[in-house]
Amino acid sequence: MKNPYVHGYHSQESARLQDQASTLEGLLHWDTSFAPGSIVLEAGCGVGAQTVPLARNSPGALIISVDISSASARETCERVAQEGLANVRVLQADIFHLPFREASFDHLFICFVLEHLPRPVEALRVLMRFIRPGGSITVIEGDHGSAYFHPDSAAARRAISCQVELQKRAGGNAMIGRQLYPLLSLAGFSEVSVSPRMVYVDSSRPELVEGFTKKTFTAMIEGVGLAAVGAGIIEKDDFEEGVRDLYRTAEDDGVFCYTFFKGSGKREG
Amino acid sequence: MKNPYVHGYHSQESARLQDQASTLEGLLHWDTSFAPGSIVLEAGCGVGAQTVPLARNSPGALIISVDISSASARETCERVAQEGLANVRVLQADIFHLPFREASFDHLFICFVLEHLPRPVEALRVLMRFIRPGGSITVIEGDHGSAYFHPDSAAARRAISCQVELQKRAGGNAMIGRQLYPLLSLAGFSEVSVSPRMVYVDSSRPELVEGFTKKTFTAMIEGVGLAAVGAGIIEKDDFEEGVRDLYRTAEDDGVFCYTFFKGSGKREG
Repeated sequence: MKNPYVHGYHSQESARLQDQASTLEGLLHWDTSFAPGSIVLEAGCGVGAQTVPLARNSPGALIISVDISSASARETCERVAQEGLANVRVLQADIFHLPFREASFDHLFICFVLEHLPRPVEALRVLMRFIRPGGSITVIEGDHGSAYFHPDSAAARRAISCQVELQKRAGGNAMIGRQLYPLLSLAGFSEVSVSPRMVYVDSSRPELVEGFTKKTFTAMIEGVGLAAVGAGIIEKDDFEEGVRDLYRTAEDDGVFCYTFFKGSGKREG
Repeated sequence: MKNPYVHGYHSQESARLQDQASTLEGLLHWDTSFAPGSIVLEAGCGVGAQTVPLARNSPGALIISVDISSASARETCERVAQEGLANVRVLQADIFHLPFREASFDHLFICFVLEHLPRPVEALRVLMRFIRPGGSITVIEGDHGSAYFHPDSAAARRAISCQVELQKRAGGNAMIGRQLYPLLSLAGFSEVSVSPRMVYVDSSRPELVEGFTKKTFTAMIEGVGLAAVGAGIIEKDDFEEGVRDLYRTAEDDGVFCYTFFKGSGKREG
């Protein structure tokens, strides 16, 4: 596989992404709901982790979800069926060569996709054409530079930077969250607005200790260990120390902070 | 002066702290209000920047504000009088040797103080004795490790780390915010709860660009330049580059993020 670090391409990763989605559903999705009759394009649905809450929160809207991977598109299909959601259509397509007429969507939803693209502004410009004039966009991204924790640990920070470096080498940007405002503005959207969604975890919030600190964030970092060591970015022992220190932040006196960014904008009418 | 970096000890700093307080008043204080008749100890009031919103939000409570510096106590007095607040008494006292009977306060409020103390848990334990059983505490602290921005800049991060290092050398901890949960727990408070207060700034929020990015955060870092260069922590040119890069984040395509932490707990009855 060309980019072994990329999220979602094996079953353990797929389970991790589902854990993440259910833990973060309220935080990321509570304020996204589309009017009955609207047609929404989800660009880059992956294994459908965001498709389910998206469709559930807008029962009267039609969600068209596309992903470049036919395996992912198939998994999204199955998941949507399992959840009994009838308002989603899934298809395999490249978001840079979409098989749709321009201006045919009321809304574009794109979550955890820009972080993988070498030219995110260009991608937004291409996708904007599929939104009708007056229609809108919602973008959600994380930012690994927003992670800090107690006890602080240089080893843990180095382990995180391995993921950042691997993603960079594959043409992406794991610290893109903070940039949503300039990216959307540069792409030509109007009324751009960004709202940070901070995940704060201490031991009074055990569901986040499990669901976020351990099973979402640390599991993701742990998952790039082989790739990082193989690429010569870090020694195996150093990486393992960093991962241990990340798990350490999930103990009784530990604290973990991470911030997602949710941006919106309009295509001018 | 022993610790030239410490906040508040000259008039420019005092103005900066007032800018900060008025910009952040909503974010930090909106959910702090005490019942009529309650008696609140503000430990370490400094120049009164937090005293004013505290007293304004609890017009029926009596606020007793103390600071170890008589100049600061006097400034708080004047400010409170200027604001026409009649429910504040200010006195000069060392918070480790308070001239009060134990258990004589319903509530303890302590903001931007623990960051300066070598043994914050011990300080909390000492102060807890002045809260009546069943009474409560509110603690607010920043965390310089929570600062990140766009464009990212290693020079800007180095300039920030000068402030962290100076504060450390003086026995404090500029990254204490994330630790409020374990600190309050270790000190013996019950029902400890911490809520992060993130300041997110982009150019759609010009009042925060001015009031926070420039006049609060960057001005604070800029203010330690002489001390940092004098202490041999950084070269003058490097520091100035870092400060320029921080101001750069206040431009149209810039973004600045910082998080305060507000914690609360109870003294068991």
